[in-house]
Amino acid sequence: MNDKINIPAELDALTEYWSQKVLTEANGMQFKVAKGIGATNWHKHDDQDELFIVYEGELVIQLRDQNIHLGPGDMFAVPRGVEHCPKAETETRFLLVGLSITSTKEGGKPNL
Amino acid sequence: MNDKINIPAELDALTEYWSQKVLTEANGMQFKVAKGIGATNWHKHDDQDELFIVYEGELVIQLRDQNIHLGPGDMFAVPRGVEHCPKAETETRFLLVGLSITSTKEGGKPNL
Repeated sequence: MNDKINIPAELDALTEYWSQKVLTEANGMQFKVAKGIGATNWHKHDDQDELFIVYEGELVIQLRDQNIHLGPGDMFAVPRGVEHCPKAETETRFLLVGLSITSTKEGGKPNL
Repeated sequence: MNDKINIPAELDALTEYWSQKVLTEANGMQFKVAKGIGATNWHKHDDQDELFIVYEGELVIQLRDQNIHLGPGDMFAVPRGVEHCPKAETETRFLLVGLSITSTKEGGKPNL
């Protein structure tokens, strides 16, 4: 049986910005946490929608035609194939739900 | 394009216990909110895992061999086919992620 998972504690334990940690899977979807500051690169995922739920700070999902400002408790799904570029002026912490880890490919993680 | 959704505000707007409201879909999964007090009936879902994320109060996921106590920020996935009976001594508010609405069938909603 699965154990319960405390999302804020998992966010506290993250050490690297924009790196996703998989907490659990359900129905083939991964539930992941990440924290970020600054901007990633523009990218899209042709194989999956990417859903964000913010826990701390403000996460701005830049789209080509608008910016979506997400604060604590806000949820937003970027549809598959839609270009986006998340950014945060101060540290933001969030849950992601998607089919696989995307932070280390497709530009979801900034170049170092 | 989807709009952003504030989960606590959607929870505040619920009027009926144990009734799920679908907020959005991503990758074929429904993201739903519900609030509850008291107990539902024992049931299982053979077609889907059911994932809970608690926002307020304590949600106790009774399983046949143990109880899982979930507080704010806690996440737990009941695997498909596993009998469970959620209960709450005081009002609890939570997000559910699954393939379809289950509150009005399979015993996920108490008999009135």
